[in-house]
Parts: sequence; structure tokens; C-alpha cells
Amino acid sequence: MANIKKDSKKKPWAGVFTEETAKGVEEFTESISFDHRLYEFDIQGSWAHAQMLMNQGIITKKEFAEIDAGLREIKHEIELKGKSGDFDKSFEDIHMYIEAELIKKCRETGKKLHTARSRNDQVALDLRLYLRFITEHYVIDQIITFQRTLIGISQENIDTIMPGYTHMQRAQPVTLAHHLLAYVEMFERDKERYKEALERISTLPLGACALSGTTLDIDRETVKKKLRFKHISGNSIDAVSDRDFVIEFISNSSIMMMHLSRMAEELVLWSTKEFSFIKISDAYTTGSSIMPQKKNPDVAELIRGKTGRVYGALVSILTTMKALPLAYNRDMQEDKEPLFDVVNTIKHVLRIINEMFPHIKFNKERMRETAAEGFSLATDLAEYLVTKGMPFREAHEVTGNIVKYCIDKSRSLEKSVDLHDLDLKEFEQFSDLIKDDIYSRLTVETSVKGRKLFGGTGEVEAQIKRLSEQMDMEKKKWRKFWQLW
Amino acid sequence: MANIKKDSKKKPWAGVFTEETAKGVEEFTESISFDHRLYEFDIQGSWAHAQMLMNQGIITKKEFAEIDAGLREIKHEIELKGKSGDFDKSFEDIHMYIEAELIKKCRETGKKLHTARSRNDQVALDLRLYLRFITEHYVIDQIITFQRTLIGISQENIDTIMPGYTHMQRAQPVTLAHHLLAYVEMFERDKERYKEALERISTLPLGACALSGTTLDIDRETVKKKLRFKHISGNSIDAVSDRDFVIEFISNSSIMMMHLSRMAEELVLWSTKEFSFIKISDAYTTGSSIMPQKKNPDVAELIRGKTGRVYGALVSILTTMKALPLAYNRDMQEDKEPLFDVVNTIKHVLRIINEMFPHIKFNKERMRETAAEGFSLATDLAEYLVTKGMPFREAHEVTGNIVKYCIDKSRSLEKSVDLHDLDLKEFEQFSDLIKDDIYSRLTVETSVKGRKLFGGTGEVEAQIKRLSEQMDMEKKKWRKFWQLW
Amino acid sequence: MANIKKDSKKKPWAGVFTEETAKGVEEFTESISFDHRLYEFDIQGSWAHAQMLMNQGIITKKEFAEIDAGLREIKHEIELKGKSGDFDKSFEDIHMYIEAELIKKCRETGKKLHTARSRNDQVALDLRLYLRFITEHYVIDQIITFQRTLIGISQENIDTIMPGYTHMQRAQPVTLAHHLLAYVEMFERDKERYKEALERISTLPLGACALSGTTLDIDRETVKKKLRFKHISGNSIDAVSDRDFVIEFISNSSIMMMHLSRMAEELVLWSTKEFSFIKISDAYTTGSSIMPQKKNPDVAELIRGKTGRVYGALVSILTTMKALPLAYNRDMQEDKEPLFDVVNTIKHVLRIINEMFPHIKFNKERMRETAAEGFSLATDLAEYLVTKGMPFREAHEVTGNIVKYCIDKSRSLEKSVDLHDLDLKEFEQFSDLIKDDIYSRLTVETSVKGRKLFGGTGEVEAQIKRLSEQMDMEKKKWRKFWQLW
Amino acid sequence: MANIKKDSKKKPWAGVFTEETAKGVEEFTESISFDHRLYEFDIQGSWAHAQMLMNQGIITKKEFAEIDAGLREIKHEIELKGKSGDFDKSFEDIHMYIEAELIKKCRETGKKLHTARSRNDQVALDLRLYLRFITEHYVIDQIITFQRTLIGISQENIDTIMPGYTHMQRAQPVTLAHHLLAYVEMFERDKERYKEALERISTLPLGACALSGTTLDIDRETVKKKLRFKHISGNSIDAVSDRDFVIEFISNSSIMMMHLSRMAEELVLWSTKEFSFIKISDAYTTGSSIMPQKKNPDVAELIRGKTGRVYGALVSILTTMKALPLAYNRDMQEDKEPLFDVVNTIKHVLRIINEMFPHIKFNKERMRETAAEGFSLATDLAEYLVTKGMPFREAHEVTGNIVKYCIDKSRSLEKSVDLHDLDLKEFEQFSDLIKDDIYSRLTVETSVKGRKLFGGTGEVEAQIKRLSEQMDMEKKKWRKFWQLW
Repeated sequence: MANIKKDSKKKPWAGVFTEETAKGVEEFTESISFDHRLYEFDIQGSWAHAQMLMNQGIITKKEFAEIDAGLREIKHEIELKGKSGDFDKSFEDIHMYIEAELIKKCRETGKKLHTARSRNDQVALDLRLYLRFITEHYVIDQIITFQRTLIGISQENIDTIMPGYTHMQRAQPVTLAHHLLAYVEMFERDKERYKEALERISTLPLGACALSGTTLDIDRETVKKKLRFKHISGNSIDAVSDRDFVIEFISNSSIMMMHLSRMAEELVLWSTKEFSFIKISDAYTTGSSIMPQKKNPDVAELIRGKTGRVYGALVSILTTMKALPLAYNRDMQEDKEPLFDVVNTIKHVLRIINEMFPHIKFNKERMRETAAEGFSLATDLAEYLVTKGMPFREAHEVTGNIVKYCIDKSRSLEKSVDLHDLDLKEFEQFSDLIKDDIYSRLTVETSVKGRKLFGGTGEVEAQIKRLSEQMDMEKKKWRKFWQLW
Repeated sequence: MANIKKDSKKKPWAGVFTEETAKGVEEFTESISFDHRLYEFDIQGSWAHAQMLMNQGIITKKEFAEIDAGLREIKHEIELKGKSGDFDKSFEDIHMYIEAELIKKCRETGKKLHTARSRNDQVALDLRLYLRFITEHYVIDQIITFQRTLIGISQENIDTIMPGYTHMQRAQPVTLAHHLLAYVEMFERDKERYKEALERISTLPLGACALSGTTLDIDRETVKKKLRFKHISGNSIDAVSDRDFVIEFISNSSIMMMHLSRMAEELVLWSTKEFSFIKISDAYTTGSSIMPQKKNPDVAELIRGKTGRVYGALVSILTTMKALPLAYNRDMQEDKEPLFDVVNTIKHVLRIINEMFPHIKFNKERMRETAAEGFSLATDLAEYLVTKGMPFREAHEVTGNIVKYCIDKSRSLEKSVDLHDLDLKEFEQFSDLIKDDIYSRLTVETSVKGRKLFGGTGEVEAQIKRLSEQMDMEKKKWRKFWQLW
Repeated sequence: MANIKKDSKKKPWAGVFTEETAKGVEEFTESISFDHRLYEFDIQGSWAHAQMLMNQGIITKKEFAEIDAGLREIKHEIELKGKSGDFDKSFEDIHMYIEAELIKKCRETGKKLHTARSRNDQVALDLRLYLRFITEHYVIDQIITFQRTLIGISQENIDTIMPGYTHMQRAQPVTLAHHLLAYVEMFERDKERYKEALERISTLPLGACALSGTTLDIDRETVKKKLRFKHISGNSIDAVSDRDFVIEFISNSSIMMMHLSRMAEELVLWSTKEFSFIKISDAYTTGSSIMPQKKNPDVAELIRGKTGRVYGALVSILTTMKALPLAYNRDMQEDKEPLFDVVNTIKHVLRIINEMFPHIKFNKERMRETAAEGFSLATDLAEYLVTKGMPFREAHEVTGNIVKYCIDKSRSLEKSVDLHDLDLKEFEQFSDLIKDDIYSRLTVETSVKGRKLFGGTGEVEAQIKRLSEQMDMEKKKWRKFWQLW
Repeated sequence: MANIKKDSKKKPWAGVFTEETAKGVEEFTESISFDHRLYEFDIQGSWAHAQMLMNQGIITKKEFAEIDAGLREIKHEIELKGKSGDFDKSFEDIHMYIEAELIKKCRETGKKLHTARSRNDQVALDLRLYLRFITEHYVIDQIITFQRTLIGISQENIDTIMPGYTHMQRAQPVTLAHHLLAYVEMFERDKERYKEALERISTLPLGACALSGTTLDIDRETVKKKLRFKHISGNSIDAVSDRDFVIEFISNSSIMMMHLSRMAEELVLWSTKEFSFIKISDAYTTGSSIMPQKKNPDVAELIRGKTGRVYGALVSILTTMKALPLAYNRDMQEDKEPLFDVVNTIKHVLRIINEMFPHIKFNKERMRETAAEGFSLATDLAEYLVTKGMPFREAHEVTGNIVKYCIDKSRSLEKSVDLHDLDLKEFEQFSDLIKDDIYSRLTVETSVKGRKLFGGTGEVEAQIKRLSEQMDMEKKKWRKFWQLW
């Protein structure tokens, strides 16, 4: 037999190599320091793969039993170690580590597990299993939980009137419920996108091997079923080159973080002394190392700030995938860290904002009071004129003139004069369509209640009903957890 | 009556203002120079809105007829002007322009069109109508067309063998059909995402007015039907603050451009002298101003390069929306230019790549030849050993050693020695499981044909059948164009 | 002579081509629709190049005179057309257009201009000339102008006290001057970066030709001098592959836009009813199409929003350049549109914000009043304790307790109780180090004036002096405009 | 004395707080799990601050001695722990941890360290000290080292001829030295940018305290000198709000990674079978888990892929800083992780690529051979015609026609015909300016040597000389390491 270098530390792929991997390369290319968190999914995948190999007669029942036991043992051992347990970097990645451990335990049988499989399809599988788990058990579940929190608070604030803003200027009165439900709608779209992405995540890449499939007689349908996937990838080259599901998850998370950043911005604004709309409880604010009086809305600020890292991760993975020729390239190993960071970020952000919300005290008096100030009922006056027959554009201008008249009068009287402070004579100077019934229209309550159209601020109870029914249904559905073994 | 400044050039919103808008502000804030392309959708929206106002008795039938005629006339006039026609920037935006024109034509009646409407919900509506049109009539349609082109070329290349690559190193033989179909799968996912986004685009914001709805008795259901929308936004504050649909479109386009950049990269590589896999016809290459011999794959290069601008647009809109408090803020005007640029880019990219593909000549001999070189059948040998009973990990190592033996032998003989060049004796040195039947396994044809699993390179005909049936069905569906009037 | 296809519409590089460029390709690859704005710089470059060709004896004096006259004429003709003038897209780019026009005018002589030059080095040159012009004449100049505006307003507001914020919570009193000067410092760093980039922009690429230089006897030093460049690129391959200068400009602009977005955010906040720190004049706000009372800070909102497009351009160009092999690739044509958009954006943003600032009225009473509220002098009390010998950490805690005492007292008395409202007895409960002199320390004026350290809020006059001297010097230097001819 | 909750676990800033920080908030807001790496710089900063407090008489000599000893001890203890040592997250950040430890050790004296300091200026200081250290000792140093490696290899390859590419098409012959030196130029610009940024990094923020400075009599000049800074921040509000230096570092790193991605792309291409320009040694490639013959250029692929994470970090920090009102906001805590990731990435990338380069074997024969193929001397022929008096544009076309003639002839003879294969008669058909001396011009050596202009491929020896002299000088300068204690 030809003289072959034998070396116990040799890489499993090193048959054709004559030099050992340089230490620096080992360190530079290893991924086990971060991909170890996939261990559970790697084991699930291997287990399903082994079962298929048995079904197809590629390994025996006895061999499967050995592998099965070996994998369970390895899972247990890793869990004992603790998730952040140190792994020897010379194993390159968690996949090689688990296979090596299995071979230690089952010798020849262990060497059969990788039959009809390549790291290319294995990695793609593990990442899909991981992302499905995260999406189902954390993301969607936590979104629902937070939506329910917001709906609950809305329920209690159907009559809490606050100023609605455009351009950060007070525009028209709305209710706090209406405002919070706007976010519930945003999260609803977020959830929809995650669910749609889930469909695509649930596509089995295993069987693609390196890129072209295998000549061995495998059965992808079995593996699909064992792993509760919905589809099998229809093209093996695509199966190992595709990272769309990672990008989609991060893109969906970017949009959700954008929504959360808007909410966080409002929490920061509302807790300024100037707005004084809310008070976040001491347990959810922090202090200053120099200024003893400070209570800062750090949680909201950090949520707003963390938007950056999720956007950054999106750019990161898009850049990495740009212009890569088919099929697998090592660049694609760079998919994991941004993904893990995004998962980590949104898990914590969703948890803490949901936890904090019930500790926010709304200053209802202040909100109502500011809602009434500053000509916020000008649009109601214009609409009043329209119902009396004046074309809207004209009504808009007439109202503008009345507002201006109030401002001038305020200035000369040196006290605030709003629309409802004018007497009928003054109104009549601008239009004789204005009658005594105007005064009942110029209250924030009438304004809010009058907006009864679908989705309007006067129809909030119905909105709450629609949304909470939907949530109830969903919650049930997503609460069933799935266990492979 | 109070003394009110009257001015024909006064802005329609300027009732309360005492100074004219500064020239510089007018120029800085105007959007008509780019949003004029929405004119058609603005008119559609206004028409549906006016019809609803008539149904609800807010305007008379006669008034509707005037508005209807006026809008048609304006549409006609804008089209005469040419789409890039100059609009006076003092009109701010296309919406104000059209309303002003209508008032010129219909006087008092024209002033009624804006009843129960704000620019906030109007702009959101126009953008949704535009994006629906683009998605339905251009994007999805062009993706299907290109997929069909690729399927057609695949059909002709079921037996064209080429090297499959991983890490840009020749890995295993595949067929050109298999390789091109990988892209068809990618575009399939792209299409799916655009379709899902279309559902969300088709949500009616009109009726939300500035942010809280209106006290007037409007009927959103009618407008929804007239405009063929699927949903009505359930929260008026969200309706005017939401730009998710813009981000989603750009995000989907970013992923598609990533796919196209990979394809473009391959076209550039394949047309190098070194690869010589393809020749792009003269009509689709360009020359050098200094080097007379050059024929450059500029189209592919530009497609690859344009990935940048689509990613950039995604960052642009995500950044703009970050941390904006509810509801509408003027920042959101910055949604249009990145969107229009993305639409423009993907329209042209999809068109030109589809047009170019049939002008690519594949050098089949060269492809087949390189597919056979460089131990590309090593995996086949390893799998052969597995079928003979050797555990895979061992088979992998034995094959590695055989490859190394070939390399050493090549070196000493100073001529290339590949696996199939060894005689049986030499093989037996490494494993006595190797028998004479090995030689029939060591051809690229056997290798390719043997990969019959679902999605494998030996199952390409079935893949083509699956995909083309699906395309046929879809094509019909998407070919029905929609006209409002 | 060999039979050669002769065609007047043939591309200048088409000697070796047998088919005409497809119409679609022409449209897809053309850049003249946006690079025409480089015409002036292209002509400058050609003129300097021609002069060098003459000096080196490659063309005659007479030939130079013809080219010189031709170029001037072309410049004049383009200017007559108007900058947005339509150019026939079949010319590809402005460089080919100008050369073609020259050949029309000077026939054989015109054909000599492109000697020892390629479009690769020509494009790089034009872009550098353009960017140098923009940086010198617009960007740096406008930054200085705006800094001077801010310094001027600071000068008038040395005694205007306002609350300084951290975490958007009132922290300590500062002066408006101090606050505005923080921005002057930011713009100072921006300017520094632009100036440093200018050094690198001023590197002559011409002479690199396609990528390797030329065998003709050219003299790069002459061209450098004629074009007032500072360096000559030391490696011809790098000279045509390098777009660092474009990225750097956009990166510097991104940081500046970040600064401007912070200022814009503050203007938006300060003009809310809740803050009421400023009133932007009617001429610099705009109204609502539905709400007659609204005055919106649109200019500030748009500046904040436009940050997105500049960040987007940065991602765009970085993505485009990623992983491009040397030397020139057509992808690099995608450098221009993002750059032009950034130039356009920052030119207008700098102009309008500078124009608007003097139209902002500061509500000094409101600012001072809020500065005094909310325990903003707690740090002064803590520092008072430190000067009396108490360790800072303890002083911090004692002060915190006093603040808490005030809050509790406010609650029971139902009126606001701040630090200076306590009597000495109450203070002594917390520390007997507190004496009667505490009251003179607990005023915003003492607080502000006491912070005399370099850069502190009590040293603002000196800061103004430092900065305005520097500006005066600089302004002179940057005001000398440069003309080639 | 007022009844005050006393609690040993109380936060140092919690005087005014009545509830304990929620566990979830503590976890969400802590930064000690990543900012602990600043410990050394925090201690340096505290030490310089304490020395200044002593000089100013704010603490006594004895107190300084205690603090000095305490800090040294803490440093030692942290180092014993190991850098990744677990820190109790309830300490929030490394700054609070070190102060708490100091108070444990020095009791009352420890409580004095934070006098005239806030975490706001302290964090800014630590980050600047860290980034200065990284820039000086790692980044610039490693760039120089790598430039020298490249220059060394260039030195050996002055005569190694290879094809120069544009559009990935062979364009003109260049030398390998010339090609590698293009990268040396790029890194030169990178280095320049890092150095310029270093100037701005070296600005002392300490003394700004929370945002407005302090009323205590401190001396910033002393601290500046002790910490070897170059400037003192001139505005205390800016000092604590500024993160330009972080962005600039990441932006500079993005450009450098772009350069490295181009080099990596070339290494990947060159090690394809198709190019076969280089062979990377086994120690610097890795194998496949399924394909025994594979040797993959993983290091180059990963470098290319890691470009994404650096771009991503840039977007991350720019997004985070967008539209933050002054001064410090907690969002800014999100500056550290992207920065640390970038530092980590570029350190490892620079190290490994430098380590790998000497293990690359260039296939000089293959390079030279391909340089001569494919009409790469067409430009030389055109320039020959120019020297004989033909206008360049005409020469270009004539040469194009000759190339086309060769291609047609190759086709009919079924063997390759290049320019130098034509006989004089054939040349004369195209132009009688072509004489016998043409043959000596049509060799790659003449072509390369003829390009003697500054920066040209024939002037490479001079380039090497210029660059290595510069490096030698620089190396000396940057090799002096700096130690505070």
C-alpha cells in the first residue's frame, strides 16, 4: 500500500493534504466559537438523516441504534458543559465536533453518519432548523404577547384623549387607545412577514450534499417528514447556495426594529419634562453618575439605539452574498454571527419592552389638556362648514382666517383665545353658515367620538374587538411547542 | 369681515400664514420634480374618492360629472406635455398641482374634491396604487418571462455537462440545465415575496385623512372596491405613518439584485479567456477606447454594479424611517426617490438580462472537458466504496489518498494522471473493495445521471417539467392587465 | 485592403466588432444622461492633455491651436444648450460626445486628442476635477458660512440660559451659545475631513491610460501643473481602479449629515408646542392641506430625512466596489449617480439651513424658565458639598436624598418644591456642611458662570473668540476662486 | 434626618430612586459583558484624573497614593481573572465596577475619584484611549508590515509578466510587481486616513463632565499631557455627544476591507484551475467534508466575506447616531460592539493575509504565457502607428481591423493567429506605415519595458524604491511603543 501519512490530529478531510493546517488559519477559519449554539439542531438533523439511512438499508438497525444513543449522549454532554462551554477550535465547527465525538463513541458506525451528506447541506439544514425554532417559539410568540399587552392597555384607555401629531405639531385629538393600536397594526404586519418567511425556511436542503446530490439511494421525503419540513428544495445547487431565508429574517427584523424605534422615540419624548405624558417607574429607569436628580428612560433609548445593529446586520449579510458565484463559498460562513446577533437583539428587546409597558403611568390629565390646546379642533370647524355646504377648500381657508383672528386677538389681549372662546358674532364675520350649534362641535370629546369611520379614532372599541379576537385565536395556535424526541 | 390678505399665488393651506413661503424653502421642499410620475394614480384615486363623495351625497351627481370630466382632461393634458414635462415648482407636489388645475376648470366644484381627504392619506394611496401597478405589470411579469427564458435554455442543455463549483474550485460535474435552474428557483422565491408584499400593498389608506379620520359620513368600502384593493387599513394613524410596503418592495428587490449579481458575476467569469465557457455576442458587449481587441461583458458588469444602488436605497429608506414619532412627518417624502430609482433599476436590469441571454453562446466542449478534469469524480469513487460497504469517512480518506497518489504520479511522469487512468492493481493498493466495475462509474455522464434524487443533477428533466408547468399557469394569470377607466 | 464594414454611426472602439450594439444595451450602458455634468472638467482635462502632447512634440502647435479652439467652442455650445440639454444616448458618455464633436470640428487633428489616454484615466481625472471643485467652492465654503452664522447667533446669546439635556432629560443649565457652538465644533471636524480628502483627490491619474501607462513619451508633471494637482498617482493600475476619493467624500458627507440630522431633530423638538423654545418664521414653515392651524417645520424634517439618502449612497458605492478585481470594471460607472446625489443633497441642505437660521426666533424666557426647573442645580449642590470636604460619591447620594425629599414634599403640599425652596434647617437634616452660602449657588446664572474651565458653558465668550478668529482666517483663504482659462 | 432607604446593593446613582432596578433592565442595559475590555484604559484615565485632582489640591497626596495603589491592584486582579473573566452584571459597566472596587479598597478616598467627572466624559475618554492604542499599535503597524511583505514579493517579481485585466478581460501585459504595488498604494491611502483620524482621536474629553463642565477648579491641560493627548475638546457639550472618531475609524476600515476584498477576490480567482496563476500551500487551504480532492482558498474567501460585517458596523453606528439630540443619549452605548467587532476583524484579517502571502506560489510560466495571448499587444500596435504619424483614433480602428483579420484567419485555419504571426504583407494591407520594426514591438517584454512613465509598468523598480524608503522611515517611527506607567 502506498505510504500515507497517518496522524491522529489530521482533519477528516485531509486525505489529499501534505501539510497541516497552519495554526493561524485554524483560528481564522473556525466557527465553533459561535456556531456551537446550533448543536441541538445539528443533532436533530443527524438523527433524522440516520433514520433515513436505516430505512434505505444504507445502515443497519443496529447501527442506527448506536448512532441514536451516541447522539443523545453527546447532546447531554454538551448541555452539561453549559452552552458557552469551550470547544477545541481545531474542530473547526460544531458539525465536525459532533461527528468526531460520535466516532469516538461508535467507531466504524460513527464514520457512516456522513454518508450522502456534505457540510454544505448540513449547515444549511441546521440553520433552517434553528431559525424555524426561533421564529416559532420566540419571535412570533413574543410579538403576540406584546400585542396583547398593548391591547390590554388600550382597553383601559378608550376614553383617554391625547393630541395626535403630524410633523410633531399637535394636529387633532385622538385617543391613547387609538395611538397604541397603530403599533399593534405594525406588529401585525411584522408577524405576517415572519410567518410567510417561515414557509420558505421550512424547505429541506439535506440531500443536496456538496451541490449535485448523491448517487446513493436516499429518500428526502422521509427526512422532510421527520423534521416537520413543508418543502424539499427542488434544485440541489440552489439548496446549498441559498441564504435568502437568513436575509429575509434579518430584513423582517429590521422593519420591526424600525417600528420599535418609533415607539421608543415616543416613550423618550413623552417622558421629557416638556411633554410629561408618562412616568416610567423607577425600576425601569436608571440614574446618572453625576447628576443626582436624573431618571433616564434608558430602556427606550437602548431599543432605539439597537435599531442600528439590526440594520447593520442586514447590510452585512447582503454585502457578503453579493456577487458570489454558485454554489457554496466560504464567505457564507459569515451568515451566522449577524443572524445570531439579530436573534439575540430582538428577543431581548421584545421581552423588555413588554415587561416595561405595564410600568408606564400615563398622565391622562396632561394629555387631555394639551389635546384641547392650540386650535386642534380647526379641522372640525372646517368639516362643520362643509356639512353646511361650503366647499372644503374654502372652508379650510375660512377656518385658517378664524385661527389667525384668534392669534391676533390673543396677542392684543395677552391671553390665550381659542376657537371656542369666540362669540357667534365673531364667527359670523367669517361666515354666516356658522350657527350656535358650532359650540357643541368644538370639544375634543365630540371631535374624537365623531370619527366613527372604520379605523377612525371614534371606532376604537371595534378595533380592539377585531384585534383581540384575532390574537386569541393565534395565541392558541402558536402555543403548541414542538419536540423532536 | 376681518381684513384678510388675498393673494392669487397663496398656497391653498396658507389661511393662517402672514408671510409668503421663502423661495429657497419652496425649492427645497418641493417634490413635483419627481412625484409627477404619480399623476395617473393620483387621478385614479381622486376619481374613486369623488365617486364615493357622490354616493354619500356629499357632492351631487352633477358635481361628480364635472370632476370626472376635469380629471380626464388633466390626465390628457399631462400626457400631452410628456411625462418629464416641466411643472411649476411652486405647486409643491403633483397632488396640489392636479387639485389646482381642477379648481381652474371646475371652480367651486373643484374645491370640494379634497373633502374628507388629506395629503397624508392621498400620498399613501397614490404610492400604493403605483407600487401595485409596478409589481403586477412589470416586476412579476418580467420575472416570469426571464424564468421562461432560462427554462428554455435549460431544456436545450439537459445534456450539457459542466463543472459544478464550490469555493470556485471544480467540485463535481453538473449540467448547465441544473445550474441555470438554480437561478429559476431563486427568482421563484423572489416572485413569492413580491406577491406576498402585494397583499399588504393592497390596503386602502384613504379615509384616514390627516391621521384620525373624519367626522363626515364617508364610505371606505366603496373606495376600496373601486380601486380593487383587498383590505382597508384598520387604524387611521397607522395608515398615514406606514411605509412598510415601500421598504418591503426595496428589500425584496435587494434580494433579487443579490441573485442577479451572482448570475452576472458568473457571466463575467465565464466570458474570461481563462474560463471560455461562453461568448456573448458583439451586440451585447462593448469595446475599449484604447485597446482595439477588447470585447467587454459590460451588461453583466453593470448589473453586478447596480446591486449597490438597490442596497443603498434600502438603507436610505430604513434610515429615514428610524425613530420617527407618529404620525406623518415630512421626512417621509424621502421615500419616493429611492423607490423610483429601485423600480427603474430592476425594470431595466430584468429587461436587458432577459434580452441578452439568448445571445450567449455556450462553449459546450470546453465545459464538458473541464468538468472531467481535476479529480471531479472523487466523490463518485468515495460513494462507490460506500456501496461496497466501507464507512463514508473511511471512503473519503481512501479516496483522498488515491487522489494524492495520482498527483504524485503526475508529477513524476510529468503528465496528468486522473482517477480513471489508474489500473486496477493501483486501485487495489488502496482498497480491495475496488473492482473492475469502477471504470464505468468514473465518467462524468455516469456521475451526472446517477444523481437522480429529487432536485439532483440527474433529475433535471423532471425539474424543468415541474417549473414550466407552474410558469404556464402563472403567466396566464398575470397577463390580464387592469384598467380603471 | 481587407474588406472592412464602414459605418458612420459605428462606435469609435468598434474596429473588431461585427455586429452593432443592441439598442437595449446602448440604453442600459449609457451614462451621458447623468455624466454630462462633467463636461466642463472633461474639457479642462483634454485641454491640459493636449498642451502636454504639444510640449512633447506629439502634436504640433497648430494642431494644439485647433484643438484648443474646438474645445472652447464645444464648451460654449453645451452651455447654450443648457446643462440639462438632451444628449444623444448613442454617444455613451460625455467623453465620447466631446471627442466626437471635436473630430467633427477638427477632423484628423481631433482624432489625435485621445493619444496616450484611455477613458479609464480620463473618467478618473474628470471625477477628481469635479469633486475638487465641489469641495473647494461649495462644501467647505458653505460650511464656513454656516459656522459664521452660528457664531453670530451665539454672540447674541451668551447670556441666554437654557436647559442642557442628557437622555432628553433636563440635566444642567447651559447657554444657548454653548449649545450652538457644539455644532460649530462638529462642522469644524467635518471641514477638516473634507480638506484632508482634498489632498488625496488632488492626485493626477492621467497617464495611466487603460491601466499600464503608455509607450509614448508623455510628461505627467506638466499635466499635473496645468491642472493644479498636488500629486501624481504612483501606480497606473491603481490610478484607474481607485474610487477611494468618491467613497471618502460620501463618508465625510454621511458624518456631516448625521450632525445636521441631530440639529434638525432639535429644531423639530424645539418648535413643538411642548418645548416652545423656538418659532420658525412663516416663510420657513409650511401648512397642512387639511388642518388650517398647522405650521410645520418641514425644512428641518426634510434635512433629517435626507440623512437616509446620503447613508444610502455610502452603502451603494461601498457595495459596488466590493470584491472587484483590478483594474477598471464597468461596475465602477455606478460611482457617479450616488455621488451626484450626495453633492446635490449637501449643497441644498447647507444652503437652506444657513438661510433659515436667522429666521428662527428663540423664546428666551421659556428657555431660562425651564432651565431652572426640575432640580437642574442638583449637581451644583453636590459640587458645593465636595468643596466643603465631602467625598463626591457621598455628596451625590446626599443630594439625591435631598431631591427625593423635595419631591415628597411637593406631593404633600401639592405645589412644586425645588432645592432653593428649602430652608437651611431642612438642608441641615441631610448634612451640616450646608450653610447659608448655598443659596447664592443655587441659581442658574451662578451655575452657568461657574463652569469656567476650557470648553465649559461659562467660558463661551472665549470659545467664540477662538472660533471666529479661525473662521476669519479661513474664509479669506477659501474665497479665492480658481479659473483654468 | 429624613428616612432614607439604605441598601448595600443600591446603585451609586440611586439617591433619588424608590424602587430597585428591575432584573430585566439590569440585564438589558448592562455593558460590562463587552466593555470590560476597556479596563486598562479606564484605569489609565482614572490615574491621570486623580493626579490632576492632587495637583489642584482637590485630593491630598496621600489620597492620590491610595488611589494609585488601588488602581494598580485592580488592574492586576482583572488581569489574573483573564480578560474574558465574568463580571457581575449588576455593576452595569466596567467604569462602575472599577470605582466600586476602588471604594472597597480605599473607602472614603475611593469615593473622591469621581469628583469633577461623569460617566459621560469618562466613557468618551476610555474609548479614545482604546482606539488610539489600537490604531497605533495594531492597525498602522500591521499595514506597514503587510506593505513590506508585498514590496518584498514585488522585488522578486519585477520581471514576472502577467496579463493586466480590465472588465476581467486580458487587456495589456503588466508585471506581477506592478500589480501587487497597486495594493501597496491602496494601503498607503488607508494608512494616511487612519493617521489623520488619530489626530482627532487624540482630543481630551475629560473635564466635560455630564455636559457642561464643572464648577470645581480642574486643570484639563495636565490631564491632556499625562495621557499624551494632542488637543482638548473646545466645547464640553460636544465632548460628550461626539462619536465621530468611532465612525471615522469604522469608515476607514470599510475602505480598507474593500481593498482587501478585491485582493481576496483575485486570490480566489487566481487559484481556480482555470486561471492557475497561484497555488496556496496546503497549510493555508482547507478541504471538503465530502469531496476528497478539494483544496479551498478559505482564508481569501473569508476575508472577502468579512467585508460585509465591517460595512454592516458602519451602517450600525451611523444609524444609531442619526437624529440624536444633544448631549449624551444611552443609544450611544451601542457604539462599542460594532467597533470592537471591527477592531477584531481587521486585526485578524491583516495578520492572516500577511502570514499567508509568503505561502503563495506564483506560476510564472502560466502568467507569462497568458499575458501574450489574446491580442494583448494591440494597444502597442496602435501606439506604434501613432509614432509613425497616424492619428490615434485611426490607429485604433486600423488595429481593430487587423485583430479582426487575425480572428477570421484563425477560424479558417483552425489554429490561433495572433498579431505577431502576420507577415509584413498582411500588415501592409492595413497600413503602409507598418514596417519590419513592428516585430520587435510585438513582444510582452518590449510592451512592459516601454511603459517607463512615472507609475507605469516599466518603471516598477523606481516605484519599489520610493515605497520601501518611505516604509523604512515609517516603520521606525511606529515601532516605539508607549507605556503610561
